[in-house]
Amino acid sequence: MKWVNVLGGIVGAAALLGLGIILGHFAIPKGTNSQHLQDLDLEILESIMQQLDASRIRENLRELSREPHLASSPQDEALVQLLLQRWRDPESGLDSAEASTYEVLLSFPSREQPNRVAVVSPTGNVLFSCRQSEQNLTGEQGGPDVVPPYAAYAPPGTPQAVNAAKHGVAGVLVYTDPADINDGQSSTNETFPNSWRLPPSGVERGSYYEYFGDPLTPYLPANPSSFRLDPDTVSGFPPIPTQPIGFEDAKILLCNLQGASAPAAWQGALGCDYKLGPGFQPNGDFPADSQVNVSVYNRLELRNSSNVLGIIRGAVEPDRYVLYGNHRDSWVHGAVDPSSGTAVLLELSRVLGTLLKKGTWRPRRSIVFASWGAEEFGLIGSTEFTEEFFSKLQERAVAYINVDISVFANATLRAQGTPPVQSVIFAASKQIPAPSLGGLSIYDNWIRYFNRSSPVYGLVPSLGSLGAGSDYAPFIHFLGISSMDIAYTYDRSKTSARIYPTYHTAFDTFGYVDKFVDPGFSSHQAVARTAGSVLLRLSDSLFLPLNVSDYGETLRSFLQAAQQNLGVLLEQHSISLVPLVTAVEKFEGAAGALDQRISALQKATPDPLQVRMLNDQLMLLERTFLNPRAFPEERYYSHVLWAPRTGSVATFPGLANACSRAMNTSLGSPAWAEVQRQLSILVVALEGAAATLRPVADF
Amino acid sequence: MKWVNVLGGIVGAAALLGLGIILGHFAIPKGTNSQHLQDLDLEILESIMQQLDASRIRENLRELSREPHLASSPQDEALVQLLLQRWRDPESGLDSAEASTYEVLLSFPSREQPNRVAVVSPTGNVLFSCRQSEQNLTGEQGGPDVVPPYAAYAPPGTPQAVNAAKHGVAGVLVYTDPADINDGQSSTNETFPNSWRLPPSGVERGSYYEYFGDPLTPYLPANPSSFRLDPDTVSGFPPIPTQPIGFEDAKILLCNLQGASAPAAWQGALGCDYKLGPGFQPNGDFPADSQVNVSVYNRLELRNSSNVLGIIRGAVEPDRYVLYGNHRDSWVHGAVDPSSGTAVLLELSRVLGTLLKKGTWRPRRSIVFASWGAEEFGLIGSTEFTEEFFSKLQERAVAYINVDISVFANATLRAQGTPPVQSVIFAASKQIPAPSLGGLSIYDNWIRYFNRSSPVYGLVPSLGSLGAGSDYAPFIHFLGISSMDIAYTYDRSKTSARIYPTYHTAFDTFGYVDKFVDPGFSSHQAVARTAGSVLLRLSDSLFLPLNVSDYGETLRSFLQAAQQNLGVLLEQHSISLVPLVTAVEKFEGAAGALDQRISALQKATPDPLQVRMLNDQLMLLERTFLNPRAFPEERYYSHVLWAPRTGSVATFPGLANACSRAMNTSLGSPAWAEVQRQLSILVVALEGAAATLRPVADF
Repeated sequence: MKWVNVLGGIVGAAALLGLGIILGHFAIPKGTNSQHLQDLDLEILESIMQQLDASRIRENLRELSREPHLASSPQDEALVQLLLQRWRDPESGLDSAEASTYEVLLSFPSREQPNRVAVVSPTGNVLFSCRQSEQNLTGEQGGPDVVPPYAAYAPPGTPQAVNAAKHGVAGVLVYTDPADINDGQSSTNETFPNSWRLPPSGVERGSYYEYFGDPLTPYLPANPSSFRLDPDTVSGFPPIPTQPIGFEDAKILLCNLQGASAPAAWQGALGCDYKLGPGFQPNGDFPADSQVNVSVYNRLELRNSSNVLGIIRGAVEPDRYVLYGNHRDSWVHGAVDPSSGTAVLLELSRVLGTLLKKGTWRPRRSIVFASWGAEEFGLIGSTEFTEEFFSKLQERAVAYINVDISVFANATLRAQGTPPVQSVIFAASKQIPAPSLGGLSIYDNWIRYFNRSSPVYGLVPSLGSLGAGSDYAPFIHFLGISSMDIAYTYDRSKTSARIYPTYHTAFDTFGYVDKFVDPGFSSHQAVARTAGSVLLRLSDSLFLPLNVSDYGETLRSFLQAAQQNLGVLLEQHSISLVPLVTAVEKFEGAAGALDQRISALQKATPDPLQVRMLNDQLMLLERTFLNPRAFPEERYYSHVLWAPRTGSVATFPGLANACSRAMNTSLGSPAWAEVQRQLSILVVALEGAAATLRPVADF
Repeated sequence: MKWVNVLGGIVGAAALLGLGIILGHFAIPKGTNSQHLQDLDLEILESIMQQLDASRIRENLRELSREPHLASSPQDEALVQLLLQRWRDPESGLDSAEASTYEVLLSFPSREQPNRVAVVSPTGNVLFSCRQSEQNLTGEQGGPDVVPPYAAYAPPGTPQAVNAAKHGVAGVLVYTDPADINDGQSSTNETFPNSWRLPPSGVERGSYYEYFGDPLTPYLPANPSSFRLDPDTVSGFPPIPTQPIGFEDAKILLCNLQGASAPAAWQGALGCDYKLGPGFQPNGDFPADSQVNVSVYNRLELRNSSNVLGIIRGAVEPDRYVLYGNHRDSWVHGAVDPSSGTAVLLELSRVLGTLLKKGTWRPRRSIVFASWGAEEFGLIGSTEFTEEFFSKLQERAVAYINVDISVFANATLRAQGTPPVQSVIFAASKQIPAPSLGGLSIYDNWIRYFNRSSPVYGLVPSLGSLGAGSDYAPFIHFLGISSMDIAYTYDRSKTSARIYPTYHTAFDTFGYVDKFVDPGFSSHQAVARTAGSVLLRLSDSLFLPLNVSDYGETLRSFLQAAQQNLGVLLEQHSISLVPLVTAVEKFEGAAGALDQRISALQKATPDPLQVRMLNDQLMLLERTFLNPRAFPEERYYSHVLWAPRTGSVATFPGLANACSRAMNTSLGSPAWAEVQRQLSILVVALEGAAATLRPVADF
C-alpha cells in the first residue's frame, strides 16, 4: 500500500541519522499525517488508464447482452449474480459487494392476451393487424424472453376509434418516424442489419409513468413492510390505453387517413402527406367507415428488483463516498442501453479491484459502485436507494457519476452535470487521447463538437444540464449531490437521429454495437478512461476537485436571462430583481475568496483537518440549493436551480415557471404572490449557499 | 494559548536531547497533531467554574432589567448596544460580535385607545371598569414604557356579551387564578412586594399566535425584501378579541355570574362558587341584564427586531459550532424572563472572553453566543435565524444550549433536552456543588427532585423533553440540532404555582428576583456553572460528549408505550409493529457498537480524522430524524420523534396522532392509510439513523 512506502522512506532516513528509536517514536504520527496529505498519484492514474482494456469491455458487453434482461426477470437476476461474482472475485474484486432488493410496482404486457392494434370494419371484421413483435432479423428477436412492444404503466382497455377529437381521445398509438430516427431512411436494405438504422418493424418500448421511483412508495423505500398507495389512486399513470407500433405499421394507418393536412412540423418520411383525420380516405386501403381498435392488456405487478452495491473502503476518509453507477435492466437485450455502460463499469471495477487486491492502491475516500434495478420503469432502483439512505448520502456523498449508455456513437465525448463537476471532467479529458485521432485529446476533440464561450475561461466544451433521463435524477434533484452523466456520442453533422435508432427495440444487440456503434470498442474505452479518471480524481485528490466557483457563471447567466426575459414583466408588477442580483454577487464573491484560500493552502502545508473542513464546504455546496418546500407539486424536485422549467430559456426554474403562470393573471393574484415567494426562496438559497462558502470561523 | 504550551514542551524536550534542528522540523506537525488531539482541560474548566461570579450576575441583572424592554422598543435596542459593547470589550470580549435585524410583524396595544373591559348597563352606562394597568406598587409599574396588559395578535374589536354560548363566543377574557399561581393566596399583604406571589392587579401578558416565527414569512427569513403573506390571510391568529385581566377584576366579573356551577376542576380561589352563566345574578353587584363590553384596539406593526451574535473562533475545528442563546426581549422589565438568563449569558461570555483575550484558552470548536429578539411574540428572532442559516447550521451545528429563565426558584436544577445531551448535563452537574447544601453536587440534589429509573443506568435525574416554550424550538424541530434548556426551579412540595407568580407581569423586577427568587444569586451561579460546563465540554472535548446510544432508551420506551397503547388497535387493523421493533433493535445495536468503537479509540492513539469522522456521526445523528414531509400541517415540525402529540402517552407522535384520528374511522379510510404512512416514515427514519451509526467504511 502506498502509505507503507512513505513511512518506509521516513524511517529509513531516520536510521541514516542514527536517531532510530527517538525519531521512530515521533515519525509514526508523521507517517499518518503524510498519508493524510497524500494527493492523487498521477502514476497510478496513468497506469489505470492504460489497463482499461477495450477488448475486455467488448467481452463484458457480449456477456451482459447475451439474453434479454428486463427488470426483475430471471436473466436480470442472473446478472445480479454475475456482478456479485465479479465484485467478490479474490483477484480483482472489491472490498465487499451486496445485492439489496425492493418490492416495486412494474407493468408488463400479458403473455396470454397480447396487446393488439387492428383496423376493423363496421361489422367487426379485422381488416389489418399491426405486428405484435418485431421481425426476427438476427435470430435474437424471436425468443420468449423478448418482451413484446408495450407502453409500461399504460392502463388496459380496448378503445376503438379513428383519430378521436382532442378532448375525447380514447387511446394513443405511438410510433417513431423515419424522419426522426433514421435520417429519413426506411427500407429494409437501408436499415439494420444492413446499417445502424431502425428496421421497419422496430418498436420503441418505454415507461409512460410521469414521475420517477416506485409508483406506490413516493419518498419511502419500497421495502416489503413499507406503506403503499392504492394503485387505483396513483397519479402519474397514463389515463388511457397506449401502445407503441413500428413505422411500417404506422405508415399503413397514417397514410390512409383523410382530412386536412397536418402542420409541416408534423410531416415525416413515411412517403405520404400526413392528414389529421378523422376517418379513412374513401379510396384508400380501408373502407372509410373502418375504425382502429386498440387492445391493451398490460398488468401491474409487484416484483422484486435488486440493486447491487460494490464498495472500496477509503484509506483516509472512509466516510466520504464517491458513487459511480448505472442501471442493469434493459427492455430487451439492451446492448447499448444500458449494457454499454455496465461493460465499462465492470472493466473499471476490475482494474481498480486488481490494484486493491494486490495492495498497490487504496483510495483516500470510499468508492461505491452501483448497478441499479428497474431504471427503465422510472429510475426505480436508484430512487429507492436514495430514499432508504437519505441521511447517510446527504451527509457523506461527494458526487455521483452516472454512465448509462456509454456510447451512443463514436464522434465525441458528451457530458452533463452541475457546474462543480465541469473542472474535473475537463481535467480528466485533457489527459486522455481521443480514439483514432492521432493523439488529439478527448477534450480537444470534444470542444470541436460542443462548445460555448465562457466569460471566465473563453472557449470551452459545453456541459449539458441534468434532466431526469437516467439514475442521476434522484441524486441531484432529491438529494442535492453533485452529479454527472458521461458518454460518447454523435457527430451531429452526420445524423439528426433523435437517439441511436434501435433504442429500446429488440435490435439493440451486441452485434449492433460491435458492427455499427463502436467497432473496436475504442469509444467505450475512451468513456471508461474519462469516467475512471474522474472517479479517481474525486476519490484520491487531497482537495476535492469540485470547482464551486463555476456555479457563479451559471448563476450569472441565469440572472441575465431572467433580467432579459422577465425583467420588464416583473417591473410592471413592482417586483424587484435587486435582491437576486445582490445574492448572485455575494455568491460570486464568497466563491472567489474560497478559491483563493484553497490556492493559498495548496502552496502551504495544510493540516488534514484544514483540508477536511474546506472539502466539506465544497462537497456540501450543492446541498445548500435544496429546499423541500420550494416545489411541493414536483415530486422529488427540491433543487431550486435544476427543477423542471416549462419555458425554453435557461434561467431559474421556480421564478420562470411562476412568472409564466402569473403572466395573464391580475395584480394581487395568488399567482403573483407565488412569483414573489419563488423569488424569495431563490434569494434565500443563494444567500445561504454564499454563507456556507465564507470562512467557517466567521460563522 | 494552550497549544503554544504543548508545543513549547516538545521543543524543550528536543533541545535537551541535542536534536533541536532535526526534531524541530519533525515536531511542527507533531505539535499540530497534539493540538488536534487535545482533550478538554479540566483545570481550565475548574478555573472557569470558579470565576463565574454571583455578584456580577446580580449586577448584570440589575442593568438588564432596569427598564422595560419590549421587543423592538428603544430600550430593547439599547440592550443590543450593551451586548455589543460587552462582546467587543478589548479585555473580556469575544472574537467578534454583530447585530442582525429582521423586519417582523409584532402586535401592540394602541397608546391612544387603551384596551378596555367594562360592565355596562343595558342603557350603556359603565357600571364597572377593569384596571387598564397594574397597580404601581414599587414605582416600576407606572412608566410610559410599561406596556399595558394585552393579548398579542388578538384582533381588534368591541364585542359585548356575558358568557356567550360556546359556538357564538364573541370575545375572550383571560385571567390567572390565585389557585393556579399563588397557592391560593390573594390578599395584598400576602402578595408582592410582601412575598413572591402575584398582586391582585397583576396581569399576564402573552402572545396568542398559534405558530412560531414571524407570522408573515414562514420558512423564509424576514429580510426587508422577503415575500410576505397578506396579514389578513395569515392563519394562527386568534379569531376574536381577547384581553387578559387581573384576578382582582376577574373576581368581580366571575363571582357575579349566575347559572349552573362550573365543574370542580374549574373552581378556583377567588372566594366564590364559579358559575357558568349566562348573565349576572339578580342580587349581585350588577343589574342582571348588564353585559360585559370588551374593547380591543391592538395593532399589527412591522418592526425591526435584532439578534446579537458573538463568536469565539474554534482553534482546531472552527467549522463546528456550539450555540448558546437566550432571548433579550421582555414583556415589561423581565427580570426573571428573560434577563435572569441573559445575566448568566453575559457572565459566562465575560469569563470565557477574558481567557480568550489573555491568550490562555481557545476552544477546539467555535462558540456562538446569541441574544434573540422578539421571543415573547413567538420565538421570532431565533426562528428567523434558523431560516436564514438553514444550510450552514444543518451542516455544522453541534448542539444548541438555551438558558432562558435561568432561575424560576432555587431548589434544584431542571433540564430539558434530547437524549444525546443527557450525559453531558449529568457529567457537568456532578462536578458542581449545589448552592448552600454543604457540598452536595447539583446532580445529587437534582436526583432528589426529578428522577426516573433507567433500564441502563438505574436511578438518574429525569430530563424533560423539549416542547416549543423557548428558542430551542426551531433548532430541534426545524433543524434537528441536539438541544437543551437549563434552569433552576421549584421545590414542588412548597408550591404548586404553574410558574413563578409574576411571570409576564410588571412585577417581574430586579427587586423581585433579589428579594424572593434568588437572594444572593447562588442559583444563578449554579446555572451559569452547569450551562458553562456543558458549553465547555461540547466545545473542547476531543470526542463530542453526545451519547447517541441514550436515544435507544427513548426509542425503546416509546416502542413499549406504542405496543401497550396502540398495539391492539393496530392489530385489529392488520398493522404490524414488527418492522418498528426491528428498526429499534437495529438502532440499539448500531449505537452500542459505536459506543464500543469510541471507547476503543479513546484507549488507542486516534488520528484527528478518525476523531472527526466519529464526531460527525454523533453530531449528525439528530438530523437523521428529520423528515420535512412527515407532518405537512405542522409548521416547522420535522423531527419525527418530537413533533407535537395530541395524546398524553410519551410515544412516537406521528403514529399516535394518526391512530387517534383514525380510531373512529372505518377500515380502508384515508386516516388508516395515514397511520401506515406514519409508521413507515418512522421505520425509515430509525433505519436511516441506525445506518448512519454503523462503521462509515461499510457504506
